[in-house]
Amino acid sequence: MKEKPSASERRALVRGEPVVRGVLAATLEELAEVGYEALRIEDVATRAGVNKTTVYRRWPTKQDLVRAAFRSITVDRAVTPDTGSLRGDLIVIARHIATQASSPELLGLRRLLFAEDRDADLVAIAQSIHESMEALPRPVIEAAEARGELAPGIDATLIFRSLAATIHHRLGLERRPIDEGFLAGLVELLLVGALAPDKRA
Amino acid sequence: MKEKPSASERRALVRGEPVVRGVLAATLEELAEVGYEALRIEDVATRAGVNKTTVYRRWPTKQDLVRAAFRSITVDRAVTPDTGSLRGDLIVIARHIATQASSPELLGLRRLLFAEDRDADLVAIAQSIHESMEALPRPVIEAAEARGELAPGIDATLIFRSLAATIHHRLGLERRPIDEGFLAGLVELLLVGALAPDKRA
Repeated sequence: MKEKPSASERRALVRGEPVVRGVLAATLEELAEVGYEALRIEDVATRAGVNKTTVYRRWPTKQDLVRAAFRSITVDRAVTPDTGSLRGDLIVIARHIATQASSPELLGLRRLLFAEDRDADLVAIAQSIHESMEALPRPVIEAAEARGELAPGIDATLIFRSLAATIHHRLGLERRPIDEGFLAGLVELLLVGALAPDKRA
Repeated sequence: MKEKPSASERRALVRGEPVVRGVLAATLEELAEVGYEALRIEDVATRAGVNKTTVYRRWPTKQDLVRAAFRSITVDRAVTPDTGSLRGDLIVIARHIATQASSPELLGLRRLLFAEDRDADLVAIAQSIHESMEALPRPVIEAAEARGELAPGIDATLIFRSLAATIHHRLGLERRPIDEGFLAGLVELLLVGALAPDKRA
């Protein structure tokens, strides 16, 4: 854990922002071209037009760098809506996932994760990203709990994982388009379930 | 549409079975090595130890052959349980998907679909497989309808797609193991939904 940055450190961080974005974008481009195993920090630095020590200072290992690059197009782009109802929040999140899932960066990331799905480093990175993703809807879950919207005993994180998985599966594997009707039907299924009212325990 | 095969044709089909299995297995092996675009029917025939006309006779195009190979490890392996309740059927299907999803053949198939995700032939094959997959749970849905288990207006196929997607996502992207508790929680969410009873319209 770091102390709160001083004013001059904060200025340095702000000055550093475009460099960070440039290095992470260069990392994603290199990954798309050569994959994870063959990725070299030197090549990322060259592509980003920075000194390789600039990269090493902030991301000491290749794994750190690639994790940060993946986070920049997943965790760092997530939305945390507050529409006043779980249904409203889920619709906003579902739309966001559907838009993101078709982005070239995310398609590239997925291609890489499956192409090198036996690489232990990459598996660890994917797991850590998904742990962070799982923490993201916490404010949405807490707001729904505060409104008394959640059934007792429900694993609320599973709603969000099922939502994301079903959208990604449809776009990525079934290769079928997604419209508002599909998203609304999916949210409704996760909210009220498939069973007829008189068949519930 | 073909006429019903004659007795001699049926015997020929039965005699042909091991050849079919050999050619489809050889197709999957070739795909894992060279991918879809570079696949040549001649190489599949050589690997399977058959004449290439044997392959062409049954599967006139590369797309037909690859579709049949994919079907052999997806559609042709599906289960259609009849346990007497939708919950019971879903649990059986969920266990089956979880087991299949970790098989080397299915991991290879997924790797290929993402590696060549811009190949129009492969996209068409994936779409056709998923259309067939969607028809598979029809007997399970009809049995649930006959028992009055489904809520009115529900898109029942979405239950099965969400089930499969969430299991595949967890194993393939989140890279986390699946146990009975996870499967039971997921089936329950899809059956009864996340909303508290007094919050349902």
